[in-house]
Amino acid sequence: MGEIAQLRSDGSLRHLLTLDGLPRPLLERLLERAAHWCRPLGAPAARGDALAGRTVAVMFAEPSTRTRVSFELAARRVGADVAIIEVQLSSRLKGESVLDTVATLEAMHVDAFVLRDADADVPDLVAAHVAPHVSVLSGGAGSRSHPTQGLLDAFTVLQRKGRIEGLRIAIVGDVRHSRVARSAWQAFAALGAGEIRLVAPPGLMPDAGEFAGCTRHGALEAGIEGCDAVMMLRIQKERMTAAAIPGEAAYFAEWGLTPERLRRAQPDALVMHPGPMNRGVEIASEVADGPQSVIRDQVRHGVAVRMAVLEAVLGAEGRR
Amino acid sequence: MGEIAQLRSDGSLRHLLTLDGLPRPLLERLLERAAHWCRPLGAPAARGDALAGRTVAVMFAEPSTRTRVSFELAARRVGADVAIIEVQLSSRLKGESVLDTVATLEAMHVDAFVLRDADADVPDLVAAHVAPHVSVLSGGAGSRSHPTQGLLDAFTVLQRKGRIEGLRIAIVGDVRHSRVARSAWQAFAALGAGEIRLVAPPGLMPDAGEFAGCTRHGALEAGIEGCDAVMMLRIQKERMTAAAIPGEAAYFAEWGLTPERLRRAQPDALVMHPGPMNRGVEIASEVADGPQSVIRDQVRHGVAVRMAVLEAVLGAEGRR
Amino acid sequence: MGEIAQLRSDGSLRHLLTLDGLPRPLLERLLERAAHWCRPLGAPAARGDALAGRTVAVMFAEPSTRTRVSFELAARRVGADVAIIEVQLSSRLKGESVLDTVATLEAMHVDAFVLRDADADVPDLVAAHVAPHVSVLSGGAGSRSHPTQGLLDAFTVLQRKGRIEGLRIAIVGDVRHSRVARSAWQAFAALGAGEIRLVAPPGLMPDAGEFAGCTRHGALEAGIEGCDAVMMLRIQKERMTAAAIPGEAAYFAEWGLTPERLRRAQPDALVMHPGPMNRGVEIASEVADGPQSVIRDQVRHGVAVRMAVLEAVLGAEGRR
Repeated sequence: MGEIAQLRSDGSLRHLLTLDGLPRPLLERLLERAAHWCRPLGAPAARGDALAGRTVAVMFAEPSTRTRVSFELAARRVGADVAIIEVQLSSRLKGESVLDTVATLEAMHVDAFVLRDADADVPDLVAAHVAPHVSVLSGGAGSRSHPTQGLLDAFTVLQRKGRIEGLRIAIVGDVRHSRVARSAWQAFAALGAGEIRLVAPPGLMPDAGEFAGCTRHGALEAGIEGCDAVMMLRIQKERMTAAAIPGEAAYFAEWGLTPERLRRAQPDALVMHPGPMNRGVEIASEVADGPQSVIRDQVRHGVAVRMAVLEAVLGAEGRR
Repeated sequence: MGEIAQLRSDGSLRHLLTLDGLPRPLLERLLERAAHWCRPLGAPAARGDALAGRTVAVMFAEPSTRTRVSFELAARRVGADVAIIEVQLSSRLKGESVLDTVATLEAMHVDAFVLRDADADVPDLVAAHVAPHVSVLSGGAGSRSHPTQGLLDAFTVLQRKGRIEGLRIAIVGDVRHSRVARSAWQAFAALGAGEIRLVAPPGLMPDAGEFAGCTRHGALEAGIEGCDAVMMLRIQKERMTAAAIPGEAAYFAEWGLTPERLRRAQPDALVMHPGPMNRGVEIASEVADGPQSVIRDQVRHGVAVRMAVLEAVLGAEGRR
Repeated sequence: MGEIAQLRSDGSLRHLLTLDGLPRPLLERLLERAAHWCRPLGAPAARGDALAGRTVAVMFAEPSTRTRVSFELAARRVGADVAIIEVQLSSRLKGESVLDTVATLEAMHVDAFVLRDADADVPDLVAAHVAPHVSVLSGGAGSRSHPTQGLLDAFTVLQRKGRIEGLRIAIVGDVRHSRVARSAWQAFAALGAGEIRLVAPPGLMPDAGEFAGCTRHGALEAGIEGCDAVMMLRIQKERMTAAAIPGEAAYFAEWGLTPERLRRAQPDALVMHPGPMNRGVEIASEVADGPQSVIRDQVRHGVAVRMAVLEAVLGAEGRR
């Protein structure tokens, strides 16, 4: 399933399932278009009509307000129609394979699917079966990938630091189970980051064969020392137990990002988090809401990045 | 409740609750307009703005992705606003009659209601109470009727065969409990089909008083012999038991449409299914995805037919 | 939390959390704009595009078809985009504070939030934290307030009676737990009603410190005697028990509005109900559907009032 060609023969983006293997110029072009669509907080949203007449189906099998609404607004703001399909709500779907459901929607002239599923293979499986004119975007595939999140993370660093080239970036927490970590690593690495550090307790560190080129650290303070950006990950309670951490307080005591610990990073280090945050667990509220936090920018940038991606895969950019 | 007038005094369509009794020229006109809205797979969807400023409420008390999204996209593509009301989600509705809910939405200037309910009387009941300018469309009424499905089935045969007149069509499986079968029979009969065969195990054959003019067959092979179209129906597990069929494998062994059995029909016979399919139960995957299958066309045609129906009932066609 | 400033420094409306304390000219201006947007039953809905490019998030933590669809249609009919967020459906939200969710949506350039919550403090809490350009509208806050409902009630009396000044209005039933009663009282009082009567069984009468200026009555007949408008409230079964009323039949026997009892009011008294109605409990069907009922007008007016409020808070009116 890793064999799906994401690019068309002319080199343009058709699907976005993973950032793995995408050419750097294509990533840079997407981030340039994201900058085109990006607006300051408080300004009116950017709008276009390049996708007028196109239909985007947003099919999430995992509940998510944040990512679902981000894709929904992004699609509408480039002019597309959106059909929201809450997969868990449709008992019909239970008796039908996801491929039959997708084929059905494709026959209704859906032009692009945004899919989120706990099963990491679902977006690839769908991409392998849709008609040539149809695009598939991953909105989060198991613990494997979340490519638009990786793009928005890179976009955020780029906007704030002016470059990714040569920067030192720490990814902290449950790296092992995190699709966010995998996609961010791929984006940062492709765009020339100087050092990418995985900072995690032993039970939450990925296997040695993964995350090629990253350095690994078993303690928060040393891990973020001198970093230009610190990306905190969401921790789930059940994962703490699996990692032999007795609970939220214990996790925070050892792995929570506090103002004191943050001082080990560069004085102007960015603090990032994909959300939703567990305040007082992986991050202290003072840090989440502090001057170095770019967490709300990440959300804002997410809409711009998704507008750029939809525009790219539906071929609208070239036709304008 | 069978007394609801579906036509206005000028002969135009006001409600679509059943195909039973609709004049053949009206059906033909709807299918002509569906052809106007129909586009090949892979082409951009057709669009119009004849219903700009109109509001369509889609109220489904039974979960359905397929039909709900089909109506939703159809309504938007003729320019209407759509409000989706998931009836089972609203606890308020439990304490309120469907008539009060509909009256409420009517007061919000909803112009048309699309209703699906396990209780076959609900769409008729609502149609009997709405204001004169409001239209009611059935999106599936118990086991009684599913008129837009019947229209899309007829449209599919017409597109592929060029005519319905004189054709031999088999409806196979759980005919007894199928609203799809009832509406398809009415459409095919009204449009001059030569022979309509009901092919079903004894427990799933409708009572003798129903389906006037159809022939009845108790075995699949003989039933589809020489047919121009074979319409397979979805079978539910609980219905197999009621029909004394021990399970899915047993059903498939006797009632599944396989490539071998399909050879009994005309060589160019169409294979139809309303979806969602139980692959390996009522239909083999090789047949569902084979060259004679028009199952995806049926879905595509569904949007076009619903655009035509919405345009007709909201009076937009005449005003253009 | 009662300290939230609802007005901007130029006196324009920014938030609508409560009618309490709003200047009478501002209320009158809202009702004038509602009249601008109001259309007769059966006429096409009014439409504008003053809010084109704006995004309204409708976040209801309590299920409601009526109010949710009313806000949704109102927002679209003044040209805004709408994102519907069913709070109870999102498991993510459980691990995230409502403030983080709102901050996230704000970062996606949501311009206004419509919030409904059983916790009366939620809309105020959100309003206290959003950015200066963002507006918060209450869609129902616990038992404390439902300001657009109060406005539509006032608008309905104004449309039918030509004035509120000097009228005698009864609010009947479970006044104690009713946000509808509180907001209606505030609207009628601010607009100069002559007498506002609370008519309720002892257990459902609000505490003495509340509803300043209202008269109180312990029996339906005497309470509505000579009134120009009778506003019935929805009663919930659990509240009957708490008020020592054995059940629905007993409630109706003593507190149901019947044609006979209605004769105690003015001959042309308006009968109002916020819906959804319990027919045969707080109101007889003959009254609900009778010539004095304006219940459907209230629903129709609700859309117009919400169009006016959205237009006001998003600053669109002044810019046209």
